[in-house]
Amino acid sequence: MADNPFEQNLDRNPANFQPLSPLSFIERTAAVYPDHLAVIHGAFRATYAELYARARRLASALAKRGIGVGDTVAVLAPNVPAILEAHFAVPMVGGVLNALNIRLDAKTIAFILGHGEAKVLIVDGEFAGLAKAALAEMGGDKPYVIDIDDPLYPEGERIGAITYAEFVAGGDPDFAWTWPADEWQALALNYTSGTTGNPKGVVYSHRGAYLNSISNALDWGMGQHPVYLWTLPMFHCNGWCFPWTVTSMVGTHVCLRRVEAKAVYEAIAEHGVTHFNGAPIVLNMLVNAPAELKVGLKAGVEVATAGAAPPAAVIGAMETLGFKVSHVYGLTETYGPAVVCAWHRDWDKQDAAERARLRARQGVRYRMLEALTVMDPKTMAQVPADGETMGEIMFRGNVVMKGYLKNPKATTEAFAKGWFHSGDLAVLHPDGYIEIRDRSKDIIISGGENISTIEVESVLYRHPKVLEAAVVARPDATWGETPCAFVTLKPNIQATTDEIIAFCRDHLAHYKCPRTVVFSDLPKTSTGKIQKYALRDKAKAL
Amino acid sequence: MADNPFEQNLDRNPANFQPLSPLSFIERTAAVYPDHLAVIHGAFRATYAELYARARRLASALAKRGIGVGDTVAVLAPNVPAILEAHFAVPMVGGVLNALNIRLDAKTIAFILGHGEAKVLIVDGEFAGLAKAALAEMGGDKPYVIDIDDPLYPEGERIGAITYAEFVAGGDPDFAWTWPADEWQALALNYTSGTTGNPKGVVYSHRGAYLNSISNALDWGMGQHPVYLWTLPMFHCNGWCFPWTVTSMVGTHVCLRRVEAKAVYEAIAEHGVTHFNGAPIVLNMLVNAPAELKVGLKAGVEVATAGAAPPAAVIGAMETLGFKVSHVYGLTETYGPAVVCAWHRDWDKQDAAERARLRARQGVRYRMLEALTVMDPKTMAQVPADGETMGEIMFRGNVVMKGYLKNPKATTEAFAKGWFHSGDLAVLHPDGYIEIRDRSKDIIISGGENISTIEVESVLYRHPKVLEAAVVARPDATWGETPCAFVTLKPNIQATTDEIIAFCRDHLAHYKCPRTVVFSDLPKTSTGKIQKYALRDKAKAL
Repeated sequence: MADNPFEQNLDRNPANFQPLSPLSFIERTAAVYPDHLAVIHGAFRATYAELYARARRLASALAKRGIGVGDTVAVLAPNVPAILEAHFAVPMVGGVLNALNIRLDAKTIAFILGHGEAKVLIVDGEFAGLAKAALAEMGGDKPYVIDIDDPLYPEGERIGAITYAEFVAGGDPDFAWTWPADEWQALALNYTSGTTGNPKGVVYSHRGAYLNSISNALDWGMGQHPVYLWTLPMFHCNGWCFPWTVTSMVGTHVCLRRVEAKAVYEAIAEHGVTHFNGAPIVLNMLVNAPAELKVGLKAGVEVATAGAAPPAAVIGAMETLGFKVSHVYGLTETYGPAVVCAWHRDWDKQDAAERARLRARQGVRYRMLEALTVMDPKTMAQVPADGETMGEIMFRGNVVMKGYLKNPKATTEAFAKGWFHSGDLAVLHPDGYIEIRDRSKDIIISGGENISTIEVESVLYRHPKVLEAAVVARPDATWGETPCAFVTLKPNIQATTDEIIAFCRDHLAHYKCPRTVVFSDLPKTSTGKIQKYALRDKAKAL
Repeated sequence: MADNPFEQNLDRNPANFQPLSPLSFIERTAAVYPDHLAVIHGAFRATYAELYARARRLASALAKRGIGVGDTVAVLAPNVPAILEAHFAVPMVGGVLNALNIRLDAKTIAFILGHGEAKVLIVDGEFAGLAKAALAEMGGDKPYVIDIDDPLYPEGERIGAITYAEFVAGGDPDFAWTWPADEWQALALNYTSGTTGNPKGVVYSHRGAYLNSISNALDWGMGQHPVYLWTLPMFHCNGWCFPWTVTSMVGTHVCLRRVEAKAVYEAIAEHGVTHFNGAPIVLNMLVNAPAELKVGLKAGVEVATAGAAPPAAVIGAMETLGFKVSHVYGLTETYGPAVVCAWHRDWDKQDAAERARLRARQGVRYRMLEALTVMDPKTMAQVPADGETMGEIMFRGNVVMKGYLKNPKATTEAFAKGWFHSGDLAVLHPDGYIEIRDRSKDIIISGGENISTIEVESVLYRHPKVLEAAVVARPDATWGETPCAFVTLKPNIQATTDEIIAFCRDHLAHYKCPRTVVFSDLPKTSTGKIQKYALRDKAKAL
C-alpha cells in the first residue's frame, strides 16, 4: 500500500492521538462540574473538585514513596471513599490497583500480595486483623501498610506505618499526574476467586477500562447525574468499572460498608439513589426483606444484576416492587459485564412471567465488545441458534483482559484460537441471545444427557416456599450422576422432599428433576456466589 | 521497564484487541434489533436487517468493481438513503467515503474528485447536471458514475453507467466484509469549504469516527431509539458522525431532501422526531416560520446546533417554542462537534435571557476529546480565565483528524506544537467554558482595540426587527477599521440606520457599535455560513 495516499503524512501525533484512559473522566468532571456532589459516606461529603484533589494528593504521596509505572498498590477495604480514590490515584502514577476481596482468607491474601508484588497495602480497620495475618504469612518483601481510619468503623485496629488521612495529607492536591504513555498499559489487577488452586491475576488495560466504563453507561441507558449506591464491591472487577462510569456520567457515589436490606432501602429514600448493581443474592435479599422497609419505595430505581444467573422468579418479584431490572453478564476477564440482555420495547407487552423469562437470558454483546458467540470449543464452529444446543461462550474484543499475570500458560489457553474461552456453557436462541446453562464444571451428565443445573434451580426458585436453591451432581451407580438439590426455605416455613420434587416434575422433564433434596443453608464464596464445589463434596458424602 | 511483569506475555491478540470502527455499530444493531425501523424516506421504509443487507450489497458491488483499501468513493447527494448506506458500505471494503457538498460549483467539485482520486461517483439525479459539468472539467482518470434514481425526485437526469438500484442489486446481501486492519485506517475524506484557495481534504480514521459517534450520544444525552431527522447534510462532516451515532443508539433515520420549515414541522408531527441538528440559520428559519406550522408542536424535541455561534436571541426563541436546544461546537477537522455547552441543573433557575446567554457559549470538551483550551498561539500559554482575554482555541485528542490529504505543509502547521490550531478566537470564562469571539480573520481592530463581530451580531439579533445580521470590518482612515453591519429585516418591516445604531449603543460599548448599517440579503456559503469575505469586499467598496 505504498501508493495509498491516505497512509502518507497522516500519522498519529500528540494533537490527534491520545491514549484512552478512564483518568480522562475525572479530569473532565472535576473541571466542568467541580461543585457536583461526588461522594456520600455517612456524614462525609465530597464534591468532584474535592474528590479530584484527594485523588491527586494520594497519587502525589504514592509518587513520593517511589510508586510508579508497573508498581502494584493493593487495597483491602469495603466500599469506603479511600478505595474509590485509589481507583483514580493509583493509575495517575502509572501504578496498578489490586483491590483485594475482603472475604478471602489470610493465606490467599498472602499469596496475592506476593504474586502481585504489592509495594503498598491500604487496609481498612475492620480487616486489619486479616491483613496482619496475611502479612505474617508472607515471605520476601512486604508492602508498606497504610491504615484507613474510617469514622464509620472507629474500632478498627491500626497495623500500618501511617493512617490514610495522614498519608493523603502529605500529598499535593495540584499534583501534575501523567497520562499513561500507552493505552495498553496495565491499570488494575483482579484475582479470580478460583475454587481450586491459586487464584489467577487478571490484568486490565487503560483502553479496556475506558471502553467498558462507557459501554456500561450506554448499555444500561444511564444518563447524566446518576445517584449510584455502592452495593457491588469495588474489589469485584473494580466494581465492574463503575467507579469510572459513574464519574464520567457526573454521578454521586453513595458508599456502603455493608450490604443489608435496611441500609439499601434507607439509602434509596434518603439520597434518592437511582442506580445500583447487585448479584442475584442481593436482589433476593431485597425481595425477602420485611415489608416495613419497602413502604414508600419510589418506583423506577434501576438495578443491574449479574454474577450467577438470576432466577426469573427473583427478577419478577423485583419488578413487582417497582425496580427496573437489567441483566448483564461477564467475568473478571471481561472487566465485569460485557454482555447485556438488551431490551425490546415490544417485550413490555408480554406478561410478567414471560418478561422475567426473557430478562433472565444473558443476551447480546455490549456495544463495546466486538464479538460474542457460543461455539463448540473443539471445532470452534458456532452452535445452531436453536435454543437447545450447548456450547461454550466465547468473547472477542477490547473489553477482554490483557491476560493473566505471570501465567503465560493460562493466558495462552484462555485465548486459544483467537477467542476468549469463558468456561460457561450456553445455548444460542433463534434471536441471537445467549442463555447460560452452566459452568462447564457444574453441568450434570445423567444417563448421557446434559442437565443444566441453572434450569433446575430456576424452577426451584419459583416454588413459593424456597428462599435459595442450588443443584449439583451426585454420583450414581446407574446414571453416572443425578441432580441433588440443596434448598434454603423461607424463615419459619416447612416443606418436604416429596413436595419439592413433585413441583419440579410439574415444570421439568423428569430426568432433570432432583433425586435428592437437602434442606440447609448454602455455603457462599466471598463474592456471594454459591460454592458448588462444597455442595458437590456434600452430595458425594450423602 | 524490562522487569515490569505487567508488560510480559500480556500482548494484544485477536481475542483482546480489535480495531475500533463504527462498522461495529451496524453489525450489532442489525443483529440485536433486526426489525427496528432504520430508515424513513417518503414512502420508503427499511428495517435494520434491510439497511444492513443493502449496505452489504453495495459493499459487495463496490468490491466487485475493485474498490478496496484506500480507494475513494465520492457521493454527491442530499440526505437520501443511498448516502446513508454509503456511510457503512464504503468502509466495509476499506474504502474512503468522500461526501461532496451539493452547493459547490462544478470547478471545485472537479478539483475535489481529482485531488481525492475518486474511483466511483454516486450522484443524485437533482445534481446530475452539476456532476456532468464537473466531470467535463476534470482531466485525468474519471470516476465510474452511478445514478441515484430517487422516487422523490423522478425528474432527475441520468449521466452514469448504471442506476444505484441496479448497482446495489448486483451485490451480495450476505457479503463477508472485513474489519479495518488498523483503527487508524482512513474512513472518510471531507473537504473544508475554504473561502480562499483550494479546499483542503480532511481525513478521518475509524478510531476517531467511532469515538466521536459515541461521544455525540453521551454528550447530548441521547438515549436508546431516537427518531432522528436529517436536517444536517450528511456531506457536512459526515453529518457530524450521526449516521453512526443514530445507528449505534438503534434509532430511526428520517431522511429529508431539502430543509424547509414546513417539512421539519411535518416530520416532527408525522414520525415523532425526537432529535435533529441544525445550523443557527435552520433554527432561525424555524423560529420565523408561519404560526400555523407550529400548531400542536410537541414539547421536548431535542435540537443540537453548531456552525456559526448561535445568537442567544435565537436560542431563547427556540426554547419558547418548546424545543430543547443544546449547543455544540467543532470544525471539519474535529469530526464535527467536539465541544459542548455542558448544562448545569442549577442554570435552569436562571431567567430565559440568562439561560440563553449561558447556552450560547461553546463550552467544554466532549467526553471523548482529551483536551481543549484557549492559548496565545505564539507562546502556547493558556490565556487567563477572565472571560476577556482572547486567544486561539486549541484541541488535542482522538477526535481530531489524521491530517490534510496530500498536504503535509498544512497538516504540520495545523498540528504545530502538539495541538490542533482551530483558527477560532475565544475567551476562557472563569468556569472554564470557552466562548468564541471570532474567526482570526474576522476580528475587527479599531483604534487598537479588538472588536468581536459575534458580540455585535448577538446584539443585532436581539433587535425585534432583525432577521439576520453580519458584521465585518470596514477600512477607516482614522481608526484603521470600524464595524460595518449588514442586516436583513423581517418580512415587510422597515427600519432606519439610526435606530439600529441607537439600539447597539444601548447594549454595547460605543466603540463596538456599527458605524455603517447596510440593509440587504446576506450571501451564504454552501453550508449556510454567511460569507464574510464577500461582505468585507462590499464594505470596502462603500
